[in-house]
Amino acid sequence: MADRLLPSWNEGPARSAILDFVARVTMEGGSDYVPPSERIATFDNDGTLWCEQPFQTQIFFLIDRIRELAVHDPSIKERQPFKAFIERDHTALHALGKQGVMELFAATHTGMSEDEFDHLARTWFASAKHPQLGCLFKQCIYQPQIELLQYLRSNNFKTYIVSGGGIDLIRAFSEEAYGIPREQVIGSSAKLRFEIQNGRAVLTKIGELNSFDDREVKPANIGLHIGRRPILAFGNSDGDLAMLRYTLAGSGPRLALLLHHDDGEREFAYDREFRLSPLVEALDKADEYGITVIGMKEAWKAVFPSAATEKRPSS
Amino acid sequence: MADRLLPSWNEGPARSAILDFVARVTMEGGSDYVPPSERIATFDNDGTLWCEQPFQTQIFFLIDRIRELAVHDPSIKERQPFKAFIERDHTALHALGKQGVMELFAATHTGMSEDEFDHLARTWFASAKHPQLGCLFKQCIYQPQIELLQYLRSNNFKTYIVSGGGIDLIRAFSEEAYGIPREQVIGSSAKLRFEIQNGRAVLTKIGELNSFDDREVKPANIGLHIGRRPILAFGNSDGDLAMLRYTLAGSGPRLALLLHHDDGEREFAYDREFRLSPLVEALDKADEYGITVIGMKEAWKAVFPSAATEKRPSS
Repeated sequence: MADRLLPSWNEGPARSAILDFVARVTMEGGSDYVPPSERIATFDNDGTLWCEQPFQTQIFFLIDRIRELAVHDPSIKERQPFKAFIERDHTALHALGKQGVMELFAATHTGMSEDEFDHLARTWFASAKHPQLGCLFKQCIYQPQIELLQYLRSNNFKTYIVSGGGIDLIRAFSEEAYGIPREQVIGSSAKLRFEIQNGRAVLTKIGELNSFDDREVKPANIGLHIGRRPILAFGNSDGDLAMLRYTLAGSGPRLALLLHHDDGEREFAYDREFRLSPLVEALDKADEYGITVIGMKEAWKAVFPSAATEKRPSS
Repeated sequence: MADRLLPSWNEGPARSAILDFVARVTMEGGSDYVPPSERIATFDNDGTLWCEQPFQTQIFFLIDRIRELAVHDPSIKERQPFKAFIERDHTALHALGKQGVMELFAATHTGMSEDEFDHLARTWFASAKHPQLGCLFKQCIYQPQIELLQYLRSNNFKTYIVSGGGIDLIRAFSEEAYGIPREQVIGSSAKLRFEIQNGRAVLTKIGELNSFDDREVKPANIGLHIGRRPILAFGNSDGDLAMLRYTLAGSGPRLALLLHHDDGEREFAYDREFRLSPLVEALDKADEYGITVIGMKEAWKAVFPSAATEKRPSS
């Protein structure tokens, strides 16, 4: 039976660490037993559950949003920072930094109701494709992680996304792609305002950041939304380090996993130099903090679902 | 079979409205069918799920916290607003208003980790009793509502608390009292700060309000935490009106319920004059907005669980 679990994970220390951990926390009467209500698992999204190269999917969405806006107001094609986005100017984009991008996102994606945004996002996801991988963005997800999420849920874990990405964008595809319902998505968010529009109560996304769910804010938002310390967390960058350390600092058995993108053949190889979401401290301190580093190249038998086009990235 | 459902609810329009609604949304193939993932039900807590007279339980907790602090610093017994609290000076307390109380709460209940606060709250709930009803506060809950929550969950509803009360205080008893897990509690909250204390990662409650979960903030927090519009909501004051209207404004079948405390014999009779949480506009506009008003006196066969002392309030 055991060899049927996590079929896209190679035999080895990563897969064993996961299977051993789940066996321990689910063994009733065992010293490491954790009741189902406390089996909280939190996953970063970009670079942990799906591809984040050459930049996060949210940025592709943002580019398309700006192009759409430019149809109504052509002058923005010539104005920065919009120009850089429309032209996919990598240098200019990376120079903005993650927070700069998030703020631009808030500025261009608000002023509409949550329902309108959801419709917009779903429409985009239905056809938008990754320029290098060739598959729909919502298919650029990691098959081993889909299996891990399912495996955890079959062991009565509650699986959450805790992402620096926009909460509403993730909610528009998380159920379909990962089996994670909207209420188990935590992310960066704009403030919401309750309004009566034409006699109808709506929530409007306003142009003010509610929270940028990265680094130290991740555990804080876990405290707010979940109110329990996860027993398992999975990330891939320094933006996840606080969440991983928060997870490990609880009593009883804990597992903190860090995906290392070392597979330039099947995906993309990067860590320290990826300006939008670097992996430096978490990698250097993994041993000291008790974080299990998982190299994609060795740990994963497959990267993307077979339905998605699997091919060598063209750059 | 039907007469065994909701046994503490009297036959009548309130019980029928609930049973009819649940039958419609769960009938597969019916025009009003709602898939389980969208069956979100949100409940206010104070005055909706448990007793809020002579004031919200949180205030009793606050009084005891201040008394505890006074052991270490006796001078606060003579200082306002602490003095009013220690002496249970109703006039002074009501004059503070709900937000004033919340802010005082934030000021006196922060500066500790979430774990420390949880321990403090659980210890208090284990022995603190309602001065007039005589039962433990955690037993001053409404039996008909416990049955309603269970009935909804048995029909694959996900039940949430959306309260103006402090999220951490509610989380310390919601699972035991209502069967509602910590992650399905939304409430007022202090900001949380991620810190490393003696090498251990903790979340500290800091003395800054994150959100006061009342009125228009309730639907906004529903948007943030749940990301779905409830199909059923239950409240008892103007503080719940925005949530009720937000619920009703979705497409398809919707049910918004408003508990009217009209039973001075078995509980407390009040509405407009209750300064800490008045019921005025929601009552006046219920018909216009499509809100179903439920008079406790007529609708409920029993008020408190039989384990709790059921007696005439002494004032």
